[in-house]
Amino acid sequence: MTIRMVDVLARKRDGGELTGEEIAFFVREYAAGAIPDYQAAALLMAIYLRGMNRRETVDLTLAMAHSGELLDLHDIAPRIVDKHSSGGVGDKTSLAVLPLVAACGVPVGKMSGRGLGSSGGTLDKMESFAGWSPELSLAQFKRQLRDIGLVLAGQTADLAPADGKLYALRDVTATVSNRSLIAASIMSKKLAAGADAIVLDVKAGSGAFMPTVAAAEDLARLMVEIGADAGREVVALISDMNQPLGHAVGNALEVKEAIAALQGGGPDEFWQHCLTVAATMVRLAGAAATDDEARALITAARADGRGLAKLRQLVVAQGGDGRQVDDPSRLPQARYVEPIEATGSGTVAAMDTGELGWVCVRCGGGRLVKSDRIDPGVGFLLTAKIGDTIEKGQVIGEIHANDDMTLQQAQRDIPAALTLSPDPVAPPPLFYATINGE
Amino acid sequence: MTIRMVDVLARKRDGGELTGEEIAFFVREYAAGAIPDYQAAALLMAIYLRGMNRRETVDLTLAMAHSGELLDLHDIAPRIVDKHSSGGVGDKTSLAVLPLVAACGVPVGKMSGRGLGSSGGTLDKMESFAGWSPELSLAQFKRQLRDIGLVLAGQTADLAPADGKLYALRDVTATVSNRSLIAASIMSKKLAAGADAIVLDVKAGSGAFMPTVAAAEDLARLMVEIGADAGREVVALISDMNQPLGHAVGNALEVKEAIAALQGGGPDEFWQHCLTVAATMVRLAGAAATDDEARALITAARADGRGLAKLRQLVVAQGGDGRQVDDPSRLPQARYVEPIEATGSGTVAAMDTGELGWVCVRCGGGRLVKSDRIDPGVGFLLTAKIGDTIEKGQVIGEIHANDDMTLQQAQRDIPAALTLSPDPVAPPPLFYATINGE
Repeated sequence: MTIRMVDVLARKRDGGELTGEEIAFFVREYAAGAIPDYQAAALLMAIYLRGMNRRETVDLTLAMAHSGELLDLHDIAPRIVDKHSSGGVGDKTSLAVLPLVAACGVPVGKMSGRGLGSSGGTLDKMESFAGWSPELSLAQFKRQLRDIGLVLAGQTADLAPADGKLYALRDVTATVSNRSLIAASIMSKKLAAGADAIVLDVKAGSGAFMPTVAAAEDLARLMVEIGADAGREVVALISDMNQPLGHAVGNALEVKEAIAALQGGGPDEFWQHCLTVAATMVRLAGAAATDDEARALITAARADGRGLAKLRQLVVAQGGDGRQVDDPSRLPQARYVEPIEATGSGTVAAMDTGELGWVCVRCGGGRLVKSDRIDPGVGFLLTAKIGDTIEKGQVIGEIHANDDMTLQQAQRDIPAALTLSPDPVAPPPLFYATINGE
Repeated sequence: MTIRMVDVLARKRDGGELTGEEIAFFVREYAAGAIPDYQAAALLMAIYLRGMNRRETVDLTLAMAHSGELLDLHDIAPRIVDKHSSGGVGDKTSLAVLPLVAACGVPVGKMSGRGLGSSGGTLDKMESFAGWSPELSLAQFKRQLRDIGLVLAGQTADLAPADGKLYALRDVTATVSNRSLIAASIMSKKLAAGADAIVLDVKAGSGAFMPTVAAAEDLARLMVEIGADAGREVVALISDMNQPLGHAVGNALEVKEAIAALQGGGPDEFWQHCLTVAATMVRLAGAAATDDEARALITAARADGRGLAKLRQLVVAQGGDGRQVDDPSRLPQARYVEPIEATGSGTVAAMDTGELGWVCVRCGGGRLVKSDRIDPGVGFLLTAKIGDTIEKGQVIGEIHANDDMTLQQAQRDIPAALTLSPDPVAPPPLFYATINGE
C-alpha cells in the first residue's frame, strides 16, 4: 500500500492518529527531499494544532534518530552518558559539569549547539578560547574521547539530519513551540548520538523556553517516556530559569565564572546547580551507586583540581589556548566596564530573564541574524538575585561593552528588567522536581 | 511597521484574527513569489483549523480579486451578470442557460473551468464540438461579447492569479475543504471578472462538494455576504445533487441533453433547473422586473429557438462546428452502447452520485491525472431517478464506452451505486432554498 502525503495530512488535520509507517514515511521521504517543504509545513502546523500522542511522538523521535548515522561508542565505554539543557540565560553548566564528570572517569562525548534567541550556546562560549574549534570528524571525535575522555563537538549533519531540516522549517512556520516536536527534536539527536543514559536539565521560568514549571514538567515527562520506550535511561531535572544562572551573562564572562567554579569559587547557587547535574550523570553512568557517593566524587574532583585540569585538556585538544584556562584574564575582554546601578529601591521580586538575555545579544554577545559574528568579551555580571533587597543607586553588577551605545542601553535596560517589591520575596529553588523513567 | 510572515502565522495558529493589512500583505507577497510555499502552506493549515471570520474572509477575497487585472465590461452592458455552479455530476446547466439568457438580450461573458474530481467541467463539455476553443485574449473576449452577447472562456491567468496559486497549493496540502477558503476562491474570480450580479448554484448531496443542505447553505450565505460587502448583488440557489442532474453524464452526451432541452425536449427536471437559474440571472440583470416575467422571457426564448440559435453562434464564434448543433449525431460517439440493467428490485432511495461521476471518469470522460486527455464520446445515460421503482433486469440506462473493460466495469458499478428500498421514497426537490443578500 502506497502512502500518499495528502492522506497523511488530511488525517492529522482531522485530529486522527498517524501510524508508525506514515510517520516513518514522512521523515524518510522529507529527509530525502521527496516530500516538498510545503507539505511538511502543512503537516507541522496540523501537528502543532492537533497534537500527537505518546506513541506518535516516540515513532517520530525514532524515525528522526534513524534518518542518519547512529553513533555507537560502546568500544570506548560500556555505558555512555549524555546531558542536555533546554537552554537559558547565563547557563554555563556544561563548561563546569562535563570536565568534572570526565575527571571522575566517565567518558563524555557531547554534541552541543549554538546560541538561539536570548539563550546562549555552549559552543559559542567555548570559542572564547582562542583557536578552539568544535569541528571534529567522527574519527577525531572517537579518538579524543578515548584519549582524554572528553569531547565537545558541533552537531554533525550525519546525525538525525531530518531533525536539522525540520527544525529549520519549524523556525520559519511558527511551529517551534509544540511539546511533541520539541521532545522529538531533542531526543532524536540524543538517541542518534548513542547515549545509554541522558540527564535532561529542563528549565522553567522567565528566561526559559517553558515559562511554567508545569509546562517544563510536561515536556520533561514526555522526553523521559520517549527515552524509556527507546530503551534508554533518562532523568529530567526541572530547574529554575526565573533569573540568570550565576552572575555572568556573556561568553567569556561565563567561561570565567565556570573556571571560578572549578577552582572552588564563584556563586554558590551556580555550583550547587552544577553539582546536582554532574552527580546525576556520574550515578547514571554507573560510576557511583548512590547520589551521595556521586556528589562526593564530583566534590573531590573539584577540590583537587582534576576538573579544571580536564577543562584545560579539552581546550588544548581542540586547538585552544590552555593559558587562558590558567589565567582567565587572557580571555577576551570588553573595552568598557561600567557599573550597573539600581534605579529603584525594594526587594527583587522577579526578572524578565529573556530580556536580560537579549541585552547581551544586543551588546554583540549573541546573534540577531544567523550570520552575526559573536563578540566574546561583552556581556554583564548581575549580582542581585531574586529575594535580595537593593537601594536606588546601589551597584548591582557591571556591564562589559565594546561601544558606548550598547553600554548605555544596557545600563538602562538591565535595571528595567527587574521587578522590585516593597515586601520580602523568597528566592526561587534551584530545582523544582526530578522526573525519573518508569 | 513591517509585517513579518512568521508573526502572521503565529497569530492565526493561536486562533487570533488577522488584520486587513496582514491578509493583503500575505496575498500580495505570495502572488509575487516573495513568501515561499511552505509559509503559505502553514498558514492555509492554520486557517483550515482555526477558521476565519466574515471580515477576514471578505478581506481575503478582495485581496485575491485585486491580485491581478480587474475586468470592466461596463462599456458593453450597464449591468454584468455572472453565474457559478459549485460543481456536480451531469451538471450541464451552463450549456442551456447561458444561450437562453444571452438570447433575452443580457450579455453573458463567462469564465469557466475544467472537470475536477468526479465533477465535469463546462469547458470540457464544450470541447465536444470539433474545433471549439476557450482560449481567447481579453480583446477577443470583449469583441465577441459585444458582437454576439455570449462568450465562454477559460479562466485567464491575469484574473485573480493569487487564487490560482493558492488553489494549487491547497490541493496538495489537504486544505481544500474549508468554507472561507472555498468562498474566497470562488468569489475572488467572480469579482475580478467584473460581475455586478452573480447567481450561485450551490449543490448539496452525494455528488456535491457539500454533502448536506446545511453545509451548502452555510457556504452560500458566506458567499452572499462577501458579495454584499464587495457591493455586488448575489443570489444563491441551493440545489439538489443527490443524483445526477438530468440523465446524461459524459461530455458529448451532456451536450446532446442540453441541445434537447433548448429544443424543448429532454428530462423535465433538468429543464426546470435551467429555467430557475436562467430566470434568476435575467431578473438580476434588470431585464425583467419579477421572477415570473423573467421565466416567461426564458420560456419564450426556448420556444422560438433563439436559445438554440445562440448556442450555435457561441460554437461557431469560437471555432467550433455549427453543424453539430443542427445535428447532434455528428458529435463524438462511443464505439459501444450497451444497456445498464438493474441488479435488484425496489425503489431507488439514494445514489452514490460521486461514484457515478467517477464511473464516467474511469471510462475516459474525465481526468485521473491532470495530463489525461478526455474522451468526449463516453459516459452514460441513467434514466432511473430517486423515487422510481425498478425491477431486477430492467433497463435503467445505457453505457457509452470505447473499450470492453470500462464498459463491463460501468455495467457493474452503475447499478451498484444505487441504494434500493422496499418502501416508497419521495424524490428530492430540485431546489432546497434561495439565499439573497441583505
